[in-house]
Amino acid sequence: MVVTLHESASVRAGTTGAHQPEPRPRVVILGAGFGGLSAAISLRRAPVDVTVIDRRNYHLFQPLLYQVATAGLSPAQIAMPIRRILSRQSNATVLMNRVESIDVAARCVVTTGRRIAYDYLIVATGARHTYFGNDAWADHAPGLKTIADATAIRARILSAFERAEVTEDPQLRERLLTFVVVGGGPTGVELAGAIVELARKTIVRDFRHIDASSTRVILIEAGERILPTMPPALSGKARDQLEALGVEVVLGSAVAGCDQRGVQLGDGTEIGSACVLWAAGVMASRAAKWLGAPADRTGRVKVNEHLNPPGHDEIFVIGDTAAVIDATGRPVPGVAPAAKQMGRYATRAILDQIAGRSTAPFRYRDYGNLATIGRKAAVADFGKAWLSGYAAWLVWNFAHLWFLVGFRNRLVVFLDWALAYVRNDRAVRLITGQNE
Amino acid sequence: MVVTLHESASVRAGTTGAHQPEPRPRVVILGAGFGGLSAAISLRRAPVDVTVIDRRNYHLFQPLLYQVATAGLSPAQIAMPIRRILSRQSNATVLMNRVESIDVAARCVVTTGRRIAYDYLIVATGARHTYFGNDAWADHAPGLKTIADATAIRARILSAFERAEVTEDPQLRERLLTFVVVGGGPTGVELAGAIVELARKTIVRDFRHIDASSTRVILIEAGERILPTMPPALSGKARDQLEALGVEVVLGSAVAGCDQRGVQLGDGTEIGSACVLWAAGVMASRAAKWLGAPADRTGRVKVNEHLNPPGHDEIFVIGDTAAVIDATGRPVPGVAPAAKQMGRYATRAILDQIAGRSTAPFRYRDYGNLATIGRKAAVADFGKAWLSGYAAWLVWNFAHLWFLVGFRNRLVVFLDWALAYVRNDRAVRLITGQNE
Repeated sequence: MVVTLHESASVRAGTTGAHQPEPRPRVVILGAGFGGLSAAISLRRAPVDVTVIDRRNYHLFQPLLYQVATAGLSPAQIAMPIRRILSRQSNATVLMNRVESIDVAARCVVTTGRRIAYDYLIVATGARHTYFGNDAWADHAPGLKTIADATAIRARILSAFERAEVTEDPQLRERLLTFVVVGGGPTGVELAGAIVELARKTIVRDFRHIDASSTRVILIEAGERILPTMPPALSGKARDQLEALGVEVVLGSAVAGCDQRGVQLGDGTEIGSACVLWAAGVMASRAAKWLGAPADRTGRVKVNEHLNPPGHDEIFVIGDTAAVIDATGRPVPGVAPAAKQMGRYATRAILDQIAGRSTAPFRYRDYGNLATIGRKAAVADFGKAWLSGYAAWLVWNFAHLWFLVGFRNRLVVFLDWALAYVRNDRAVRLITGQNE
Repeated sequence: MVVTLHESASVRAGTTGAHQPEPRPRVVILGAGFGGLSAAISLRRAPVDVTVIDRRNYHLFQPLLYQVATAGLSPAQIAMPIRRILSRQSNATVLMNRVESIDVAARCVVTTGRRIAYDYLIVATGARHTYFGNDAWADHAPGLKTIADATAIRARILSAFERAEVTEDPQLRERLLTFVVVGGGPTGVELAGAIVELARKTIVRDFRHIDASSTRVILIEAGERILPTMPPALSGKARDQLEALGVEVVLGSAVAGCDQRGVQLGDGTEIGSACVLWAAGVMASRAAKWLGAPADRTGRVKVNEHLNPPGHDEIFVIGDTAAVIDATGRPVPGVAPAAKQMGRYATRAILDQIAGRSTAPFRYRDYGNLATIGRKAAVADFGKAWLSGYAAWLVWNFAHLWFLVGFRNRLVVFLDWALAYVRNDRAVRLITGQNE
């Protein structure tokens, strides 16, 4: 059970009697993404009390969120209640609440209406997309981070086709059938590929007035190649596969403006589009502010090689919220496997501290890097070897099913993928939300 | 293809040349619920042009919507894109648009930004819940009609448990663990049974501070029995089964007030609750206003035994929007089978008019009436015979799977039901929405 400041004070004062057991170290984990959840689970047999705080009630399998946004999967297929995952872990308590601040001196997390005391703190509050100071773009170019983001993007994509079918204005129709994805990282590539497949393969027979196969999907990347964390040869393979599907890839162009008409590029080009999606730029959560710790320019807390912010070896910052140079001297990428490794490392370090042992610095193990593009199209980088096309796509599918949490989710995702493959269909083509 | 006023004028003026084929009768269907969709499908081989207009892009299997609201099913499992259902029906066009009004004299439906001319019109725009003039109650006691309603109710139910787990105020905790369902019709009964099962069987192990098995679920019905359209003996059976699950059934009590503290009954009793759900009172769509036709007190258009409003045998009003006394002299109930039968009747009457034949009056065939209460608990009324308990529950499950649209939906609903049965689980326990 969680020991609040109040209860903790009574325990310390001994008011509850002599039979009160010795309080166990309290580990508080902020955020139940890949990092926080792997930390919580790896403490399942440890003699500590674990409290997981998240402002959502579910753990989200982020790598498949773009499939919710493009009508392939339902939210529940890639999300699982945090408290259900930890249901049988008797030393774990889950609180759905919002973190307001952290009282580092008093070792206490301040949540809405309640203070939670800790002996060890793991901060795993992730990151969100950013518009590089142009927050007005958010209304015209939504980003993809939560389930609500995904269902809103799904509604925006599907509504564009519906409005194109209704309108009698050819210019508006053209704008409605032009989709722009900003950012050539994995999410941008996956979104662009999925939209062009949705338009040209899935829904093309369903409309009477528009020719959905004429849909334009434009991927805009400011750098000189897409998937910049992959080897250059694989970036080229990915671009070839995207273009084969019908995506127009624009490289070396930054977005200079974004409004209800579409996007303006740095060179003055205007692209008319009623559906611009934002997959560029990531900003860490407010953890650095909460901790009063130094941050890099994307807001990530600069931690040492034990994942501690300066002067606090009882605090660990992990996952997308941390800027880490690992024991090999390389920066750790903001990917799910790295967050999970950091989560497990933090719990090992905590148990070492409790036992009075020292812990070796964190070392990231890179097992490879995957990105999917579309049906039978993907790239996979395993350091010494790489794959492209059908083989990479099979690896991608297998890996994502493998890492999904829960038997039911694996089964239903597999079923929907199998049906989608056979029928060229997408099962979740629903426009829902407050504007219904 | 749909013939708009503009196109229709050019066809009539002969400006497109001598090879223009004779225009086919234009049947416009408003609403793609059970009634509208069955009308559209039964015209699949008829020599007419069909246009289906709905402000949503999906057909919803309403009878299972309460399972979305209580975290058992995902929206996509009970909803299907209208244009996908009609994809291969070449004489059918689907337009997602909002009806503003109907120009009965000009035989034209006015939608947002576009007028759609018709030769025959089928109005199947359904009904919504009503608060009997107390619209301020809507914020405190949401009703269940759309997918957005269902996911909002799901968030409200699940959030109550989450907030109860966080709070340290015992009075607030008690209010959060008290659920009130207003209305003892099928939806109210199903919601109450599902909430008590969710609390006492599914989530009870997942919390550390609250005892979810102490959750109170109170069903309030103004009349003297629940399920008033069933025989009295079955109402009693249903009540027994609800109470065995743990629902408190309050009969003969109308709600006199509803605010953020809970509900006030007519006799002055106050029930503190943070989650009141509204399943009482139905109001038809605005069709009577659009048509300038007489309506009953719930807004339903009074139609003749051919389903026409007075003086317009080219217009058919069907489903929950119509007040019908059928050929046997009995009022037709507002249920899915009746809507489907009316949809098929309207299309037969249209084809008869085109062929110059007369049509026998509409006659409702009642194949029975089912309501589910919980696991292995249901009632079924087949007129001469009835079932209760396990047998009724099996019939209910089979019937609902049978009538679901689409192979994929049948398969995934069956899977989730089977897993839920074996594990006492609910697969979709997600709190999503704009407040995330």
